[in-house]
Amino acid sequence: MTQRVRVQNFGVSRDGIAAGADQTLDQPFGSAVDPMRLFSWAVATASWPNRTEPGGSRGFEDHVIRDFTHGIGAEIMGRNKFGHQRGPWPDDGWHGWWGEDPPFHTPVIVLTHHERPPLPVGDTTFHFVNATPAEALARAFDLANGLDVRIGGGVTTVLEFLDADLIDELHVAIAPVEFGDGLKLWDRPEDLEDRFHLEKITAPSGVEHCFLWRRDGTPVQT
Amino acid sequence: MTQRVRVQNFGVSRDGIAAGADQTLDQPFGSAVDPMRLFSWAVATASWPNRTEPGGSRGFEDHVIRDFTHGIGAEIMGRNKFGHQRGPWPDDGWHGWWGEDPPFHTPVIVLTHHERPPLPVGDTTFHFVNATPAEALARAFDLANGLDVRIGGGVTTVLEFLDADLIDELHVAIAPVEFGDGLKLWDRPEDLEDRFHLEKITAPSGVEHCFLWRRDGTPVQT
Repeated sequence: MTQRVRVQNFGVSRDGIAAGADQTLDQPFGSAVDPMRLFSWAVATASWPNRTEPGGSRGFEDHVIRDFTHGIGAEIMGRNKFGHQRGPWPDDGWHGWWGEDPPFHTPVIVLTHHERPPLPVGDTTFHFVNATPAEALARAFDLANGLDVRIGGGVTTVLEFLDADLIDELHVAIAPVEFGDGLKLWDRPEDLEDRFHLEKITAPSGVEHCFLWRRDGTPVQT
Repeated sequence: MTQRVRVQNFGVSRDGIAAGADQTLDQPFGSAVDPMRLFSWAVATASWPNRTEPGGSRGFEDHVIRDFTHGIGAEIMGRNKFGHQRGPWPDDGWHGWWGEDPPFHTPVIVLTHHERPPLPVGDTTFHFVNATPAEALARAFDLANGLDVRIGGGVTTVLEFLDADLIDELHVAIAPVEFGDGLKLWDRPEDLEDRFHLEKITAPSGVEHCFLWRRDGTPVQT
């Protein structure tokens, strides 16, 4: 089976913004971007991994959320998704934003110019790798044990993999909000239609879900 | 974890018809119902289990199709879904409509007044059980090893489980076709809104996908 390269549940505003440029420990998405406004649709589903009370929708968006871990064997993320630090890693005990049980449950490659030993947290292991997208993807295919690879973001990392034409399939959720200023995935989803089929579905939440998959039928892994 | 009782990918026409009453070996859905008109949306997805050529959509409907086996540990079906025979089972070597590799990959309970020994086909085993819906469900929960139970149809079986209030969640795909005469699931999906939340999503295929889940929040398994 071909291993695919997938972006899942990536949240942007109507104006294409996924995060602000001014990330801090207190504001992982920057000061102008409220992540709850991007991800409230996901939090409302029954299958949201951090759900603490029963209930939640079992509709279309729940099907998307419960697909998150299916068939995925590794993730690649940028270092800003892993932490707020910049430059050489401080000895601060940081092990990601997710506490003791990160939701990945697979190897995760963290792209960084500052390599360091692998860090296991729960059943996720973070590998800190200084590599091009193509090199990182080869490593991720290997770690994924025959399963697919998720490009987990942030937006800069997704753009790097799009620029290198190393993504098979994207699901992007456009929340009904505008931020005006920040890091943009796109001006509009149609910008990717030269390379990807685009299907848009609007959920009762008001979120417009964009599903994109390669037109040429040739997977990244050939 | 509570085990849920789910109906998945159940196809009906706009007038609520899932099959004709005159099933034969050549026409498993009866003479007036062309199953391709009910299921062409599913066949067009990349994850359709019987796909023989590469390609297919990776959009919303693909997410629904690829969810089919996830978290399911057993299925319950009526005997007409298993075969075209009526009355006592003939010694005809029949082992279902699906060839040597049925798509279930779990134990399957076949409801019948005529019990017979279990029949393994591929990694599916068919159990022929004379029981009420509640008795069959208790048996299926046991066979499912902690996972959910699918009510696989046909329409008569789904209606029996709805009447007994033994279904947690349904996904019904309304195809853009009318058959006029046959076995009806409903006049319209809103008929179930007294007991179920209803979310309707129209796909580019023209199919209206209905997701229904219990309003009272109390699962069937309590």
